[in-house]
Amino acid sequence: MLSTPQGTVPTPQFLPVGSQGAVKTLTPDELKAIGVKMVLGNTYHLYLRPGIEIIEKMGGLHRFMSWESPILTDSGGYQVFSLASLCRVSDEGVSFRSHIDGSEHFFTPELVIQLQERLGGDIIMTLDECPPYSNDSRLIREAMERTHRWAERCQRIHRRESQDLYGIVQGGVFPELRRESARFLTSLGFPGYAIGGLSLGEPKEMTLAVLEETVACLPKDKPRYRMGVGSPEDIFEGVARGVDIFDSALPTRTARNGALFTTLGRHNIQNARYKDLDEPVEPDCDCYTCHTFSVAYLHHLFKSKDLLAYRLATIHNLRFILKLMEQMRQAILDDSFITLKDSFLASYQTTDEEMRLAQKQRWLERFG
Amino acid sequence: MLSTPQGTVPTPQFLPVGSQGAVKTLTPDELKAIGVKMVLGNTYHLYLRPGIEIIEKMGGLHRFMSWESPILTDSGGYQVFSLASLCRVSDEGVSFRSHIDGSEHFFTPELVIQLQERLGGDIIMTLDECPPYSNDSRLIREAMERTHRWAERCQRIHRRESQDLYGIVQGGVFPELRRESARFLTSLGFPGYAIGGLSLGEPKEMTLAVLEETVACLPKDKPRYRMGVGSPEDIFEGVARGVDIFDSALPTRTARNGALFTTLGRHNIQNARYKDLDEPVEPDCDCYTCHTFSVAYLHHLFKSKDLLAYRLATIHNLRFILKLMEQMRQAILDDSFITLKDSFLASYQTTDEEMRLAQKQRWLERFG
Repeated sequence: MLSTPQGTVPTPQFLPVGSQGAVKTLTPDELKAIGVKMVLGNTYHLYLRPGIEIIEKMGGLHRFMSWESPILTDSGGYQVFSLASLCRVSDEGVSFRSHIDGSEHFFTPELVIQLQERLGGDIIMTLDECPPYSNDSRLIREAMERTHRWAERCQRIHRRESQDLYGIVQGGVFPELRRESARFLTSLGFPGYAIGGLSLGEPKEMTLAVLEETVACLPKDKPRYRMGVGSPEDIFEGVARGVDIFDSALPTRTARNGALFTTLGRHNIQNARYKDLDEPVEPDCDCYTCHTFSVAYLHHLFKSKDLLAYRLATIHNLRFILKLMEQMRQAILDDSFITLKDSFLASYQTTDEEMRLAQKQRWLERFG
Repeated sequence: MLSTPQGTVPTPQFLPVGSQGAVKTLTPDELKAIGVKMVLGNTYHLYLRPGIEIIEKMGGLHRFMSWESPILTDSGGYQVFSLASLCRVSDEGVSFRSHIDGSEHFFTPELVIQLQERLGGDIIMTLDECPPYSNDSRLIREAMERTHRWAERCQRIHRRESQDLYGIVQGGVFPELRRESARFLTSLGFPGYAIGGLSLGEPKEMTLAVLEETVACLPKDKPRYRMGVGSPEDIFEGVARGVDIFDSALPTRTARNGALFTTLGRHNIQNARYKDLDEPVEPDCDCYTCHTFSVAYLHHLFKSKDLLAYRLATIHNLRFILKLMEQMRQAILDDSFITLKDSFLASYQTTDEEMRLAQKQRWLERFG
């Protein structure tokens, strides 16, 4: 169980992404019905639009988006390095241009903490430098050490006791750097730790090895948060290695592209073979979409580009992941997690890694 | 009260448009919560996509879209003449090319009835010829007389007793043609009558005069259905003249464009003055959107193009119209309709007619 000022959240837990103050297409009521316990907001996005002062004036992010349960806000480090342009980093902070209008901005570790305090999330994140995947350990060490200095500055400026500030482990694919980063951050004594800078193009076996190594160096009694992971197979591997919190736009973004989760894998609803299928997407699913509509109807909505399509698909994909998390939590209590994992992965056909990276790249190029 | 096989509907009533088997962005549950009693489906759209055979295979339109209350299906005459291209009309029927893929099709009065029987709506419509606005009474008479011959053929082929077939009055802006059309169709004895071929570019005073003239020639004990009308001011004028049923995409389409109904008129939520307004769209509105979110939040969702924006705006606009219909029904019972109409229109600033026609034209050019 993870305690936050807005209530307790059972772990392992998955957080849908509401970067811009909404989990795309869905209302807070629907999120609750799906079983969502905590959502992710993003400082970079909200700072650029509508602006932190507007959200503050509206009584903070919870009230602005009418979400009463916990919120975790990301510092926006990852977005500055991936979405923004002309990003220049120095010890002082990072300058960048908005991906929306090209305007110039400067984030320091102190500023992102102050911005997150004004947003009012329950868990907030330090600013980290997020270099692309690289085999150059000197470059990765440099970014890691800067991330460490920034983490200290974040901790120093952080005032609001009602918010938990998490540190972010960096260190690329180098086990010795990961260990060093985990130990350094642990020495600062954060109430929770995120694992950043993975799944950036490195082979999957390497991701898992580094993840395992990192988790092993983090305190057992503090939550570990693996950022940017949301496929069933990756969540299973993360939980197996001791991760407590996941977030990712993957379930919601793929839903809007028509890729729906089933126990056999992700299926594209727009495929012609679904045009007259009078069955729910997933027979055992308890979501509104599966309870109410046939695959044929969803196929038709996607073909006619009705906005209802994206919504119904999002409801299903999120519920699929949330239900899987419920099953994992139960299996952990029952000491049958490995059985659940093996039986799920035996029938679930994972999406080809190369295709996933290509999809992610296309998405980044379109600015999300 | 209007009786249909799926239940009784109080009148005057407004039907939101679900041409393609969904009221864009909304679920059946939301429609019910808003107070929607009947929706409109469209034969032209559903015939082209997904195809009538698919909907038939799924158990009909009610089951396909999971809508248990009444459905009215339009014959698609208006869409053939406005959306399709290369439309050629003869006594036999009308040939056209699909606006989706350019494929060739041929609608006869008999075919559109058979298609509507297979869709399974509760009220179905005859095929009518819908010429553009014209001062040439010879042309309009020709289309009207063809519409009459088609109405007879529709009536002759119609088999399903569980569906009510309505005739459609034509006759352009010529009172003598309208009277003739109303009398002719009345002589055929339909269970309800629609008034088509208005609001096509003629001056508004002319629309209202022709509407009044037409309604006066229709039987008092049968429902009168004014097609394609959905602004508050037009609905008030229609009800004042004895119209029972209205349908229009206007409330939902304008919502998706960010134009929200208030008692003062339609306001565009994207206007910068709304960026920090911590108020509901309409203080007295009982819709989910007004109960849950501020204008500032809606403004932000529209600016960030989150699909949730279009949905929340649609909920509000539809509820605004549906609540107005409830007030009108009560006022009719209380004998205070004229007071309600005058007091509403005294504060409601109507949208400039010229702008509305320009908007409609742009919409038609984009194919809906």
